[in-house]
Amino acid sequence: MFLTRTEYDRGVNTFSPEGRLFQVEYAIEAIKLGSTAIGLKTKEGVVLAVEKRVTSPLLEPSSVEKIMEIDEHIGCAMSGLIADARTLVEHARVETQNHRFSYGEPMTIESTTQALCDLALRFGEGDEESMSRPFGVSLLIAGHDENGPSLYYTDPSGTFWQCNAKAIGSGSEGADSSLQEQYNKDLTIQEAETIALSILKQVMEEKVTPNNVDIAKVAPTYHLYAPSEVEAVIARL
Amino acid sequence: MFLTRTEYDRGVNTFSPEGRLFQVEYAIEAIKLGSTAIGLKTKEGVVLAVEKRVTSPLLEPSSVEKIMEIDEHIGCAMSGLIADARTLVEHARVETQNHRFSYGEPMTIESTTQALCDLALRFGEGDEESMSRPFGVSLLIAGHDENGPSLYYTDPSGTFWQCNAKAIGSGSEGADSSLQEQYNKDLTIQEAETIALSILKQVMEEKVTPNNVDIAKVAPTYHLYAPSEVEAVIARL
Amino acid sequence: MFLTRTEYDRGVNTFSPEGRLFQVEYAIEAIKLGSTAIGLKTKEGVVLAVEKRVTSPLLEPSSVEKIMEIDEHIGCAMSGLIADARTLVEHARVETQNHRFSYGEPMTIESTTQALCDLALRFGEGDEESMSRPFGVSLLIAGHDENGPSLYYTDPSGTFWQCNAKAIGSGSEGADSSLQEQYNKDLTIQEAETIALSILKQVMEEKVTPNNVDIAKVAPTYHLYAPSEVEAVIARL
Amino acid sequence: MFLTRTEYDRGVNTFSPEGRLFQVEYAIEAIKLGSTAIGLKTKEGVVLAVEKRVTSPLLEPSSVEKIMEIDEHIGCAMSGLIADARTLVEHARVETQNHRFSYGEPMTIESTTQALCDLALRFGEGDEESMSRPFGVSLLIAGHDENGPSLYYTDPSGTFWQCNAKAIGSGSEGADSSLQEQYNKDLTIQEAETIALSILKQVMEEKVTPNNVDIAKVAPTYHLYAPSEVEAVIARL
Amino acid sequence: MFLTRTEYDRGVNTFSPEGRLFQVEYAIEAIKLGSTAIGLKTKEGVVLAVEKRVTSPLLEPSSVEKIMEIDEHIGCAMSGLIADARTLVEHARVETQNHRFSYGEPMTIESTTQALCDLALRFGEGDEESMSRPFGVSLLIAGHDENGPSLYYTDPSGTFWQCNAKAIGSGSEGADSSLQEQYNKDLTIQEAETIALSILKQVMEEKVTPNNVDIAKVAPTYHLYAPSEVEAVIARL
Amino acid sequence: MFLTRTEYDRGVNTFSPEGRLFQVEYAIEAIKLGSTAIGLKTKEGVVLAVEKRVTSPLLEPSSVEKIMEIDEHIGCAMSGLIADARTLVEHARVETQNHRFSYGEPMTIESTTQALCDLALRFGEGDEESMSRPFGVSLLIAGHDENGPSLYYTDPSGTFWQCNAKAIGSGSEGADSSLQEQYNKDLTIQEAETIALSILKQVMEEKVTPNNVDIAKVAPTYHLYAPSEVEAVIARL
Amino acid sequence: MFLTRTEYDRGVNTFSPEGRLFQVEYAIEAIKLGSTAIGLKTKEGVVLAVEKRVTSPLLEPSSVEKIMEIDEHIGCAMSGLIADARTLVEHARVETQNHRFSYGEPMTIESTTQALCDLALRFGEGDEESMSRPFGVSLLIAGHDENGPSLYYTDPSGTFWQCNAKAIGSGSEGADSSLQEQYNKDLTIQEAETIALSILKQVMEEKVTPNNVDIAKVAPTYHLYAPSEVEAVIARL
Repeated sequence: MFLTRTEYDRGVNTFSPEGRLFQVEYAIEAIKLGSTAIGLKTKEGVVLAVEKRVTSPLLEPSSVEKIMEIDEHIGCAMSGLIADARTLVEHARVETQNHRFSYGEPMTIESTTQALCDLALRFGEGDEESMSRPFGVSLLIAGHDENGPSLYYTDPSGTFWQCNAKAIGSGSEGADSSLQEQYNKDLTIQEAETIALSILKQVMEEKVTPNNVDIAKVAPTYHLYAPSEVEAVIARL
Repeated sequence: MFLTRTEYDRGVNTFSPEGRLFQVEYAIEAIKLGSTAIGLKTKEGVVLAVEKRVTSPLLEPSSVEKIMEIDEHIGCAMSGLIADARTLVEHARVETQNHRFSYGEPMTIESTTQALCDLALRFGEGDEESMSRPFGVSLLIAGHDENGPSLYYTDPSGTFWQCNAKAIGSGSEGADSSLQEQYNKDLTIQEAETIALSILKQVMEEKVTPNNVDIAKVAPTYHLYAPSEVEAVIARL
Repeated sequence: MFLTRTEYDRGVNTFSPEGRLFQVEYAIEAIKLGSTAIGLKTKEGVVLAVEKRVTSPLLEPSSVEKIMEIDEHIGCAMSGLIADARTLVEHARVETQNHRFSYGEPMTIESTTQALCDLALRFGEGDEESMSRPFGVSLLIAGHDENGPSLYYTDPSGTFWQCNAKAIGSGSEGADSSLQEQYNKDLTIQEAETIALSILKQVMEEKVTPNNVDIAKVAPTYHLYAPSEVEAVIARL
Repeated sequence: MFLTRTEYDRGVNTFSPEGRLFQVEYAIEAIKLGSTAIGLKTKEGVVLAVEKRVTSPLLEPSSVEKIMEIDEHIGCAMSGLIADARTLVEHARVETQNHRFSYGEPMTIESTTQALCDLALRFGEGDEESMSRPFGVSLLIAGHDENGPSLYYTDPSGTFWQCNAKAIGSGSEGADSSLQEQYNKDLTIQEAETIALSILKQVMEEKVTPNNVDIAKVAPTYHLYAPSEVEAVIARL
Repeated sequence: MFLTRTEYDRGVNTFSPEGRLFQVEYAIEAIKLGSTAIGLKTKEGVVLAVEKRVTSPLLEPSSVEKIMEIDEHIGCAMSGLIADARTLVEHARVETQNHRFSYGEPMTIESTTQALCDLALRFGEGDEESMSRPFGVSLLIAGHDENGPSLYYTDPSGTFWQCNAKAIGSGSEGADSSLQEQYNKDLTIQEAETIALSILKQVMEEKVTPNNVDIAKVAPTYHLYAPSEVEAVIARL
Repeated sequence: MFLTRTEYDRGVNTFSPEGRLFQVEYAIEAIKLGSTAIGLKTKEGVVLAVEKRVTSPLLEPSSVEKIMEIDEHIGCAMSGLIADARTLVEHARVETQNHRFSYGEPMTIESTTQALCDLALRFGEGDEESMSRPFGVSLLIAGHDENGPSLYYTDPSGTFWQCNAKAIGSGSEGADSSLQEQYNKDLTIQEAETIALSILKQVMEEKVTPNNVDIAKVAPTYHLYAPSEVEAVIARL
Repeated sequence: MFLTRTEYDRGVNTFSPEGRLFQVEYAIEAIKLGSTAIGLKTKEGVVLAVEKRVTSPLLEPSSVEKIMEIDEHIGCAMSGLIADARTLVEHARVETQNHRFSYGEPMTIESTTQALCDLALRFGEGDEESMSRPFGVSLLIAGHDENGPSLYYTDPSGTFWQCNAKAIGSGSEGADSSLQEQYNKDLTIQEAETIALSILKQVMEEKVTPNNVDIAKVAPTYHLYAPSEVEAVIARL
């Protein structure tokens, strides 16, 4: 019954009679097509793990970047359109660098997340940096600031939430259930790594290898695991 | 009967033959989908209480912010699209700070509300700050200025009213009836807290806990209740 | 018969084959949904009276403003979209203040009305202050200048007329007939008050109280009646 | 037969397959709905006469202005949308004042008419002063300059013609025939007044009174007749 | 067969699948509705003759201008929308004056024609001087420069050709055939006048009088014939 | 089968589901309606020959320009919309003059061709010089620079190719076959002239005369043949 | 089933209900129509090979450029719309030159690729350099920087991947399979040349000649093979 919908979603940023913003809902669909990403907050820091879809053996796995550094104390995992995510991450990098330059201290994780979401919210507004459509990407933003470790989750509507643990992407439904069962606030980083990877393993169709997953932590600085470090986590499963 | 409607609501800010602005009406629908918020004015100050929908036990309840400070003498509760509310609140924060800086005194509650509504009214106009659609959010603005405590209610059309008590969001119909029965002008702040939470309790589907409600007061300055303070109000029910 | 109409009213400011501007006609429909307002010119000054729809006992009646001061010698009553009226009134306030500042004397009532209508006429033109649609409001502008008292009536097309007496809003048809029967040029202000309120009483569905009507006069300066003054007029009916 | 037309008139300023500009034709329809206006050129000066539709006895007849002064040597009568006419007249007033200021002499009637038509022609062009639709008004421009008296007629397409006598508005067809019968170049001003009013009388549905007609002459300066002067012309009929 | 056409001509300046620009073709239709104009080049100079449609005996024939001076060595006759022609002529007048001012010599006829066509070509481009639709007018541009007399013909597509003789407007088809029969390069100006008017006479529905035709020559300067001069040509027929 | 196409070609510069740009394809159709033009590169220089459609004996053949000089070392022949070609040629003339002024040497043929194609590619982009639709013209650009003689062919998509010989326009298919048969790299200019004209003769419906063909060469400077020189080539056929 | 699709792809950069961006998908179709290009990374450098479709023997094969130099250490092969590729390559050339000028060192291959993709991503945004539609081209970017040789692959969505070997264009599916079979990391440049050309040979419909293929390498600087060098590779097949 798409035809009647389309009567309302032609304006990219217009309410339907039921009060819905369809372009945002469609962008969320784009994320459901994306690869799965998982984040867990522990007292020691935050762990991010992502599935990488390496479609050809001739592709360089390290060039499929689904975890990126924003600042030395902030990283993010993404699911959805990678080119959109790069634009958001580049925006956040400039914002955090400007903050350091202006105030002589790192930007808080919440302010960084808010800055990303301000940009995401203004799609369709014709601003210089904004897009003509919603950003088709969800982010898990992991960071460590004066309030300790924190994990944020953003969606294409420009809304964000703070979480203890969260999964996004095509396998997020099952992964979220597993996280609720296995998460507790006293996890060590190592336990979090193991949980993240074991849940990814359940939702992935392939065998988990250092080539098709990435792991990173912010504890308290951003660190992307080398293949050998990923191998070590796989070995613990 | 949507098809004939859509003939008239394609321009985001255009009258229908009956003289209606459908995008505003659709935005009001978005608010009917939102969580319930309640405000009560007493002689001592204003109380705000909101339902928080914490969809997962892994979400940090404090990051679901539905009551926000605008200035030290003004706070607001919201129902509808949270990202839209953040834009309005951010605008109001800048306006109130500018006012303090320019005039050396706090902005009145009515001027602050008017400034918010001016922005809300101009949707679809292509201004720098305005949106291409109505803001999908209603606010209860609580404040205390030279005229004493006051409570304002705004809707997506950019209209505002001053109230003694008001409920917004999905449970607003029942909550408004209860408020009319229980409200009187001589309530103490403590009585207002109890009424607000008992009414919220009726419209919420879950048990009320410090995790799924927030309470704030402006009396005469803004104060968001800590979980223990919320617990104390719950205990009084 | 709406479908064929819509072929012509998609451009907000476009003629139909019969030479009609439908968006203006639709905006006039918005006014027919509004509350009734009445104005009467006497030799001593002008009286304005409006019905206020106070939808809940918890609403502060004084915050439902349907009569507003423009300058100390000009006031106006409105029917239609209140947020639109506020924009027009704010524009007129700036214009009259600028006039006083530039010329050291009050702006005439006709010039003020013309300034309001210039803004109203240019809807859909993409100017900075103009709207993308007609302003959905009619005004009764009462004033007193070097030519003595005067009463103007404006509609969404940007046209204005000078009147001795006029009613606008949902009850305007009946009220206009009553005005023609009862008006004469030698009325005193007090008689005008009585006529205005007795006619409002006929078109309102509720009992008239100081809570649901407002009265103001410009004689020669703007004065909004206090509840006790309204009560006194009601007592005379 | 409207449906196929509309395929071509959506762009406000676009040719139909037959080479027609429908928005201009529709604007001309708006004028056919307007009140009748008549102009006659004599050797002594030009006479303008208009029907005023005073829809209510409470309307101030003098505020229904259908003849306006442009400069002391130019006046115009109008039929169609009055608010549009006001914009054109205001534009012409600025042009003629600028001309006097720049060149120290009055602007010729033809240049003034050309300036009005330049603005009218550019509808739909997004210029600062132009409208998004044609101006829905025809003007009879009467003036007196170094070439003696002259009368111009403009239509919504931005075209103008010089005439000896011309009628516009709903009664123009019959009035034009009567003018052709009764006009000769040797009329005195007084004879022209009488002819104009007698023809207006034929096309009006009401009795002619100083309240429902206006007369003006430019001979050689603009003069709008006072009610007593109108009464004197009526008496001569 | 209009419906399928309209699928392609909505963008004012867009190709149809067959490689056609319909708005240009429709503008050419507008010219076919216009009055007939004829130009003939002789060794001594160029003659222009036009039919004037004077729709009412009360219209001043001299105000129906279908031949206009561009510069003292250039004139043009037109068929189609007169208001559009005025804009083009005004543009050409400014260009030729600027040229005289900058270079101290008259602009050539070809450069003037090119300047007109540059403006005509850019319709729909949103430039300051260009129109949102094609100019609905054809011009016959007659001039005399260092290359002797020349006659150019322009159409709404912005294309131009040099001719020895050419007719445009509703009677152009028959007039062109007659011109081919009667034209030779050794005509005198007087013979050209006679041919032009005798051909006009054939295509006009009325008797030719000094009121309903205009004649001009550029030989080597622009001269519009006075009624008596036109009468003399008529007498020779 | 047009209806489904049009679903995709409304945006002037938008891909169809099959990855096609229909407006470019339609512009290419416009060229297929144009007159035929032929270019041949020899070691001594490049020859261009075009058919001129002189629709009336009263048209000045020399004003139907289908071969134009760009700079003294570059000329071009065109097929399609002549007014579009003039814009491109004017652009190229400015570019080559600027190059001479800035660098003191002639612009290469490839750079000139690239500059033309950059402008052609950006149709629909709203740039100052670009068009809202593709340029409906193909060019054969003949030149001679430090690399010797060269011949380029451009199409409406902004693509260009270097050729030894090429035909464009309505007769291009047959002419291209003939060129492939008759072309060799050791042709003299005179032989190239003869081949070009003999092939044009085959595709033209009329007898070839100096009035309906133009020939030019760049060897090493641009030279447009006088009628007598064309006559001489015709005589050789 | 195109009709329902088109409901969603009218906005050039808008999500469909399934979260897809159709204009990007259609642009990818444009590439599937393009000629095949192949890239292989070896330890010594990167080899690029492309099929050239030389549609006529009169076309200069060297003017069909499908491999271009970006900087002395970067080259690229392309498939799709050549005019679009030229815009991207020109953009990259400016970026790499600016980098050299600002930092005194060559730009890395990844930064160059990112700069290209930033431009590609922002189609439909109205920026100065961006297009109103996606760029209809894929690139294989070969380079050599401080990290040694690298090969990147970009698509119209603005996404890029690093590869060891990759084929694009109409024959990419078969070519990619062959590459997976034959590629290993220890290939020499010479072996890579042979593999590239032997795979191209399989997907091309014609005999491979120096006229219809191009080969280039970056090892460590860009070098486009002369016809004799291509002949030598062909001889080795």
